[in-house]
Amino acid sequence: MSAPAFDGRRRVIIEGVSPTVDDGRFPAKRVTGEIALIEADIFADGHDVLSAVMLHRHQSESKHRETRMTPLVNDRWRAELSIEQLGYYFFTIEAWVDHFLTWHRDLQKRDAADVDMQLRIGAEMIRGAASRAKARDRKRLEHFIATIEGDDEMSDKLHDMRSDELLELMWRNSDRANATRLQCEYAIEVDRPRAAFSAWYELFPRSFGSLRNVEAELPGIAKMGFDVLYLPPIHPIGRRFRKGRNNVVNAGPQDAGSPWAIGSSEGGHKAIHPQLGTFEDFRHLIGAANASGLEIALDIAFQTSPDHPYVSEHADWFLKRPDGTIQYAENPPKKYQDIYPFFFESAEWRDLWNELRDVFLFWIDNGVRIFRVDNPHTKPLPFWYWTIREIKKDHPDVIFLAEAFTRPKIMYWLAKAGFSQSYTYFAWRNTKYELTEYFKAISKPPVSDFLRPNAWPNTPDILTEYLQYGGRPAFVIRLILAATLSANYGIYGPAFERLVHEAREPGSEEYRDSEKYEVKQWTPSNDDLSAMIAVVNRVRRENPALQQNVTLQFHNTTNDEIICYSKSAGENVVVTVANVDPHNTQSAWIDLDLAALQLDGNQPFQVHELLSGARYTWHGPRNYVQLNPNVVPAHIFRIRRKVRSERDFEYFL
Amino acid sequence: MSAPAFDGRRRVIIEGVSPTVDDGRFPAKRVTGEIALIEADIFADGHDVLSAVMLHRHQSESKHRETRMTPLVNDRWRAELSIEQLGYYFFTIEAWVDHFLTWHRDLQKRDAADVDMQLRIGAEMIRGAASRAKARDRKRLEHFIATIEGDDEMSDKLHDMRSDELLELMWRNSDRANATRLQCEYAIEVDRPRAAFSAWYELFPRSFGSLRNVEAELPGIAKMGFDVLYLPPIHPIGRRFRKGRNNVVNAGPQDAGSPWAIGSSEGGHKAIHPQLGTFEDFRHLIGAANASGLEIALDIAFQTSPDHPYVSEHADWFLKRPDGTIQYAENPPKKYQDIYPFFFESAEWRDLWNELRDVFLFWIDNGVRIFRVDNPHTKPLPFWYWTIREIKKDHPDVIFLAEAFTRPKIMYWLAKAGFSQSYTYFAWRNTKYELTEYFKAISKPPVSDFLRPNAWPNTPDILTEYLQYGGRPAFVIRLILAATLSANYGIYGPAFERLVHEAREPGSEEYRDSEKYEVKQWTPSNDDLSAMIAVVNRVRRENPALQQNVTLQFHNTTNDEIICYSKSAGENVVVTVANVDPHNTQSAWIDLDLAALQLDGNQPFQVHELLSGARYTWHGPRNYVQLNPNVVPAHIFRIRRKVRSERDFEYFL
Repeated sequence: MSAPAFDGRRRVIIEGVSPTVDDGRFPAKRVTGEIALIEADIFADGHDVLSAVMLHRHQSESKHRETRMTPLVNDRWRAELSIEQLGYYFFTIEAWVDHFLTWHRDLQKRDAADVDMQLRIGAEMIRGAASRAKARDRKRLEHFIATIEGDDEMSDKLHDMRSDELLELMWRNSDRANATRLQCEYAIEVDRPRAAFSAWYELFPRSFGSLRNVEAELPGIAKMGFDVLYLPPIHPIGRRFRKGRNNVVNAGPQDAGSPWAIGSSEGGHKAIHPQLGTFEDFRHLIGAANASGLEIALDIAFQTSPDHPYVSEHADWFLKRPDGTIQYAENPPKKYQDIYPFFFESAEWRDLWNELRDVFLFWIDNGVRIFRVDNPHTKPLPFWYWTIREIKKDHPDVIFLAEAFTRPKIMYWLAKAGFSQSYTYFAWRNTKYELTEYFKAISKPPVSDFLRPNAWPNTPDILTEYLQYGGRPAFVIRLILAATLSANYGIYGPAFERLVHEAREPGSEEYRDSEKYEVKQWTPSNDDLSAMIAVVNRVRRENPALQQNVTLQFHNTTNDEIICYSKSAGENVVVTVANVDPHNTQSAWIDLDLAALQLDGNQPFQVHELLSGARYTWHGPRNYVQLNPNVVPAHIFRIRRKVRSERDFEYFL
Repeated sequence: MSAPAFDGRRRVIIEGVSPTVDDGRFPAKRVTGEIALIEADIFADGHDVLSAVMLHRHQSESKHRETRMTPLVNDRWRAELSIEQLGYYFFTIEAWVDHFLTWHRDLQKRDAADVDMQLRIGAEMIRGAASRAKARDRKRLEHFIATIEGDDEMSDKLHDMRSDELLELMWRNSDRANATRLQCEYAIEVDRPRAAFSAWYELFPRSFGSLRNVEAELPGIAKMGFDVLYLPPIHPIGRRFRKGRNNVVNAGPQDAGSPWAIGSSEGGHKAIHPQLGTFEDFRHLIGAANASGLEIALDIAFQTSPDHPYVSEHADWFLKRPDGTIQYAENPPKKYQDIYPFFFESAEWRDLWNELRDVFLFWIDNGVRIFRVDNPHTKPLPFWYWTIREIKKDHPDVIFLAEAFTRPKIMYWLAKAGFSQSYTYFAWRNTKYELTEYFKAISKPPVSDFLRPNAWPNTPDILTEYLQYGGRPAFVIRLILAATLSANYGIYGPAFERLVHEAREPGSEEYRDSEKYEVKQWTPSNDDLSAMIAVVNRVRRENPALQQNVTLQFHNTTNDEIICYSKSAGENVVVTVANVDPHNTQSAWIDLDLAALQLDGNQPFQVHELLSGARYTWHGPRNYVQLNPNVVPAHIFRIRRKVRSERDFEYFL
């Protein structure tokens, strides 16, 4: 039997801290300009009043600042943390039984017979505070003691005890001897706002000839309202086992090869394909893009062609088979002889990790600040945890998008480990039920604290059946869903806006004559969606509600083909109603959760349809919608919450 | 820039471990005889096959045993841990990329051209295993290598590779060099089965004269089917400020006082009230109770009367006011001058903690193994964490019931900290909605991993409005709900079975002429519920389904006054249907979730009503029930899952 090893007078318990990811094992994610709500369950035995502070610091600071926490309900406490700098913030919580506040609360409830004794007890506590206080506070506290112990009327003494000044002095000099402090700091990882809100456009530079020629496309892409231009790998492409058009095994001499078969005698991950241009061209493109309000995102694919310089220079980074040949990629019985994976269990894994990190740093030195990472789930997961932190130490503005089309827990882990954005299963979520369940799951804590979805209707690898057979309406529907359900979204163009929809063969999600294996010539189309895309992106920029996901809420409709959801940011409330059936006109009654939208159900409210500009007055929660997919398959309504007060105002005129 | 501090070749991630409480900060609770399902999310990059073991030990062991884990779905893995001993079990998890199993899986999918090379790769791995193996395994592994490298037909070699023996040998000698092991052990706290399944009966010994006289009540209590007999404090009662009948401030000379005003010149927490008897009487009562299948539970209330010996002997354990008097309990403007709380912020808190722990040990030495702890939420929460562990170190069979009628998070924390059972809000959950929401919340993980509810329809402090005005039906309904919703339940008798229902005044939950403040004479009642209680307790004992809560499931009914829920344990399935309206006959269609009950919806099934003995045949999920509260307000059905196979059998006769 032994005495406890801790101080048993620390009566306060602090638990259930948020935002946290896996109990603090990973940081929660925020962007600059946000207010992070730091919360915890804080309680103690009995009925004493507690006080609590949230202690916080940016990574660049060693000393904590303090913010007083406020009780909400059910023993939950909160403080606001203003997120201003990139990098990491750290916070912890300290709380204590506040005997002065307990005394102060009870003083008002006591009967007259007790007051004299209570003032003596109060004077003792104020004296204690004075002994802890610095000169100026001490002087004021001693003044209060003198009042209590002096000859003033009792009512004057009590009036003094209730003064804000005394409360403020006692707070500043509170007795924290028995305070409980959390034993760890929790981290918040801060990115720039583009990590949370971005519209991506992907194109293959070689289809436009060269990096210089891509510059001619910038005004059009900017006009559509995108802010990230993502380029598949721009490195030299291997020759041996090169794949031909439509991914056939033997390329002809004219075949351009896949940009993901990286490396040739002309260089590897730190080189540019000679036909695309020079590093000067690349940096010029970055400058031109930035001038158009676009950032260049580069693809990083950690694999090599058999011709990559690494293969000869770093044989230890590849797995050898018993006959001495290098193990190519395979998924038996399929073989991918044009791709060598790195051997991450190599004894030389440290050199490999350092080199791969340096690939990122190399392109950062050349002006890149956004990376799309190819198949991160086929490289060791701890590698990403380390690499992203290594890079962010000096470059906290860098954004990483994980192309991890893999099982949910691996997708989540990569996001926890540091990826700023994540491709999602959006492409395969087409029905109202699928979309609702999926976005409910990923738009709320805990998931939303670490994973930022990036929704793509198409990619060079994914031409869904929905797009193959849904015609123009399918493209419009998927565009609007991606752009309004997810604050980050992207399209692979010009295939998308030109409605390219032919698959390699029935049942395949590969494009026929895929741009992955050949150079395309993009010719304008009559049916081009670029004007529609420009409208949708403008709506996103003008409505803060669409620039985040955490307020996403689904509303009931009477038709399984009509989906309805809202997002809000302060006074900005946007309701999207979409027909997910690309073939037929659908109609429904929609039941808005007016309470959740903070709308008064007894008053009409104005809705402004942002795609068409039309304005309607709605009455109550239930309103009728009919959507013809061939005209416009969705409405994006901005709700005017203020109708009631404006009407009230009219009555006074 | 630095190399990673960890071994990057450890590719496996282990997370989401269960059962755990607050990520391992507290143990999960189980009882002996249970199988604990240990689960985790285990995954790595790529598509390699993984292997995992759960490592476990009882606290008495220093070395881990290993149990192989099995993959379920969605990267979830499981192993079973058989809980056999009291105290603590510790477990952790180790997992690795299993290159041999990956090779083994892929071997079957490879085309013929690859097989030769693959056998060479396999031989290398088997050679590696042989180098790690002990003599006997090594010899067998070398035999397999010889086969691969020998002149056998390829088909024979492949046949060998597929042998169970080889898989077993390779498993035992698997290459774990790059295994990931969780960095901590998780704890499981093991109680005896009574902690999870018990029926409590509370009585005031003094109302029967003495401890000796209580022995005469034992057969009746045992006949009703209870297994715990709980006695309010049996210590000497203070004189100063003693409360009179109905809690009036000044007791008359004949007033017996409240048993919770502990301590007089005759002794304190380690003494027995002289009128109740001697320690010999107490130990005799324990023996007699045990002989009747009952255990004695003792109340521990850590507070004193002004006359308690502690007050003079340990003045430092009490808070003094400025005038030197001791601070009595108060909730301004209410004063409780008859009660002194301990001052847990005393400089002498260590002595106080040790003494309070010793109070438990004192009664343990006198044969007590179950304690009901009075108001634990008004003593520092860390005190309970320490005390319960101190006691359980040497007495892992001791059970603690927390009477923490307080805010939910404090109630939960006390359970996490070590209380074996917890009083609940059951008394105030009367409607179908309230009962459903409440028991859903407390019967499933994470809550059920640390909190074991104990449901009381009444206590000496709680006579609910429902019982005051609901008549006999109210008592029967609340009995059946408590006994079937919660594996642990209790009643305060004889007040309960004799339907005592008069409150001190309207709006009060206090009994009129409460037994807390006076000695009662219990006279038999015509309407006594003891026969009904005996039936209910027999049903509980005969049906393992009612001896746990985690399988609790609610089923829809068409009437808000009719609640329906099931519990199951293996083949034992019990469905309870109750009318929660004590005044009116109610009827409903109930919609059983047959899939959840593993019943075939296309076949009739037999239900056996356990209160009446009646048997019915039900067809499909929807069945009609009508319940007259004045006859019997509930049915407890045992479902015969086997009907289908029995009928099938009949056809063959």
